[in-house]
Amino acid sequence: MAQLNETARVEAFSDGVFAIAITLLVLEIHVPPSDDKRLVAELLKLWPSYLAFLASFMTIGIMWLNHHRLFTLIKTSDDGLIVINLAVLLGITWIPFPTALVAEHLKRAEGVAAGVLYASSFAVIAVMYNLMWRYAVKMKLCAVDVDVGAITRQYSIIPVMYFVLVGVAFINGTAVLIASAVYAVYFSMPPSLWRRKSRSQA
Amino acid sequence: MAQLNETARVEAFSDGVFAIAITLLVLEIHVPPSDDKRLVAELLKLWPSYLAFLASFMTIGIMWLNHHRLFTLIKTSDDGLIVINLAVLLGITWIPFPTALVAEHLKRAEGVAAGVLYASSFAVIAVMYNLMWRYAVKMKLCAVDVDVGAITRQYSIIPVMYFVLVGVAFINGTAVLIASAVYAVYFSMPPSLWRRKSRSQA
Amino acid sequence: MAQLNETARVEAFSDGVFAIAITLLVLEIHVPPSDDKRLVAELLKLWPSYLAFLASFMTIGIMWLNHHRLFTLIKTSDDGLIVINLAVLLGITWIPFPTALVAEHLKRAEGVAAGVLYASSFAVIAVMYNLMWRYAVKMKLCAVDVDVGAITRQYSIIPVMYFVLVGVAFINGTAVLIASAVYAVYFSMPPSLWRRKSRSQA
Amino acid sequence: MAQLNETARVEAFSDGVFAIAITLLVLEIHVPPSDDKRLVAELLKLWPSYLAFLASFMTIGIMWLNHHRLFTLIKTSDDGLIVINLAVLLGITWIPFPTALVAEHLKRAEGVAAGVLYASSFAVIAVMYNLMWRYAVKMKLCAVDVDVGAITRQYSIIPVMYFVLVGVAFINGTAVLIASAVYAVYFSMPPSLWRRKSRSQA
Repeated sequence: MAQLNETARVEAFSDGVFAIAITLLVLEIHVPPSDDKRLVAELLKLWPSYLAFLASFMTIGIMWLNHHRLFTLIKTSDDGLIVINLAVLLGITWIPFPTALVAEHLKRAEGVAAGVLYASSFAVIAVMYNLMWRYAVKMKLCAVDVDVGAITRQYSIIPVMYFVLVGVAFINGTAVLIASAVYAVYFSMPPSLWRRKSRSQA
Repeated sequence: MAQLNETARVEAFSDGVFAIAITLLVLEIHVPPSDDKRLVAELLKLWPSYLAFLASFMTIGIMWLNHHRLFTLIKTSDDGLIVINLAVLLGITWIPFPTALVAEHLKRAEGVAAGVLYASSFAVIAVMYNLMWRYAVKMKLCAVDVDVGAITRQYSIIPVMYFVLVGVAFINGTAVLIASAVYAVYFSMPPSLWRRKSRSQA
Repeated sequence: MAQLNETARVEAFSDGVFAIAITLLVLEIHVPPSDDKRLVAELLKLWPSYLAFLASFMTIGIMWLNHHRLFTLIKTSDDGLIVINLAVLLGITWIPFPTALVAEHLKRAEGVAAGVLYASSFAVIAVMYNLMWRYAVKMKLCAVDVDVGAITRQYSIIPVMYFVLVGVAFINGTAVLIASAVYAVYFSMPPSLWRRKSRSQA
Repeated sequence: MAQLNETARVEAFSDGVFAIAITLLVLEIHVPPSDDKRLVAELLKLWPSYLAFLASFMTIGIMWLNHHRLFTLIKTSDDGLIVINLAVLLGITWIPFPTALVAEHLKRAEGVAAGVLYASSFAVIAVMYNLMWRYAVKMKLCAVDVDVGAITRQYSIIPVMYFVLVGVAFINGTAVLIASAVYAVYFSMPPSLWRRKSRSQA
């Protein structure tokens, strides 16, 4: 019970960080100045900010969902897991910066660096998730009835997908944002393989 | 118990997002510069910011209350519910932007676009709440003793009310803010129909 | 148990708002520009910001502590309590604005309006706390073994103390900040009268 | 059980403050203006902001971990503990300011004041942790099977380490940030002495 409690506080702290990072994104959308005559046109010109906001919201949201899924499988916590989890959260709190950057530079050639940083940030976080899962498996922190191999295989693909996104960033920054949103929709699908072997949840 | 736990973390994450969005609103009220000679007059001129802050606080507060009410009826969570809930939260985190926009543009003709965006944002969130509730009913995630039909009827009216507000925005931006606050007071009333059929709560 | 759960979520949401408001205060302390030659002197000149940060942190902290104390006495929640609690939270989220204002205007005659707004905000929140407590007593939401009368008497004094602070604001803004900090220390003292009549906590 | 609940809410509030402070750090990294021709060069020039972000994230993260460890040992809460805990949280919410300051002033001679303020802030927080632990021991708030003496000895060293860092700040600001990150890695190591004497956790 003490152990369960420990996991509970790690989850609570992580939820807080996810919730704050996802909510801070909106601060990067700047209101057009009030002496502006053509507000509708000015609002439409902000589309890179809206798109970046949406893509990052969906990605952080789905990362939270995956964090949530992992911690329904991980039943015990130790110091190593907490430290890897902090590395995951470091990635999450970092997201508002590349989001603001890509929104600001989307329409220029220099936007390449912004898009690469944006996609790379997601790729690194995806690697961290893999590390966290593999650590939990190795240290036997998971519930006993979990099909560990299937989840490990599924997770291995995700960093690859985001590294592909880094390649896309060299071609088109807008495509990176749209692809990120599409990825998020894809990852929101219930991963049937994650179901436990037993029927204890029925 | 595993299922209950799952709902608990969805609620905790949602509470975090609601709490942060509602608290960030104040950041959009800008302190008049310190070399200003007539502070009281300057503070009074900020009335659109205060009114927008108040209307958005009340609306997000009442949306949190309704989220809270819904999740006392919804007893189990699945991936679909989590995704719809993320869509609701996307709407909530977005609110500080139209709030700042409407505060900035309230006194000009261009304010129409700001008011329309403000009211539309609430309308879309109200639609999302309806989707979430209908999904929960369809997937049988609710407690068994809930009068589903009555709640569905009650909820259907709310988006209509906010779409009326979009119409009001074409006439007067200030009226949109005042009506939003009045709506929030109205929605805070205990909805007697939501009471469970059984007396299990007595 | 359903009722307890309900109170738990009100407390969790309130904790979130208190935690965010108290943490946002630091954003109002602005870093002196980097081309500045005399950093130490510039940092010392920021003393009104530090003092306002400290006074508001202590006041919000002690308000959280009192919220916490109240909700160890209040055992059930209803819609009315939730709405009054939202009014309390409206006051809490508002605090960063008068804090920034008083820090900015502390050294000028115009600072009077800033100090008055600052002290009045606390006074209104103190009134809200009284309303919340009296509502909980009237609706019989408290634990049965609480010495209601003693707490009601104690709480009645707090708004009076903050209205005195409003008067002080007309004389000296710095004194308002120092007095707020002193009040917070005073309110942090364990109120022996709040102890329950029974010895059930021993 | 009432007591356990009380500790739970102190932890929840603390988690919120830690989570927000750690997530606000990213707001101090400012996006280079969009009319900038050489984005990569501009992004590289921001290295003091990245380093300060990383060092502060790691330090707050490890402080959260230590808070978490302490509260697995501390089983009961009283008003004194809550007040000392608020003093710890005051230090945590303060961190974004010296972080932004040190990032801004890292490359100049005036950076000395920034580095000293940065390292001193950590030293004061470390002292507060010691006070909190000693208070909990003195008031017998800890679980009975904890090796109190060993933890007290371990904790006593930490403020000394951070006061050494204050000395380093007079020589080199960058070294302060790197040393802070190294300290955080060191403190993340599982402190074997903290294990409980009994085997009740097995």
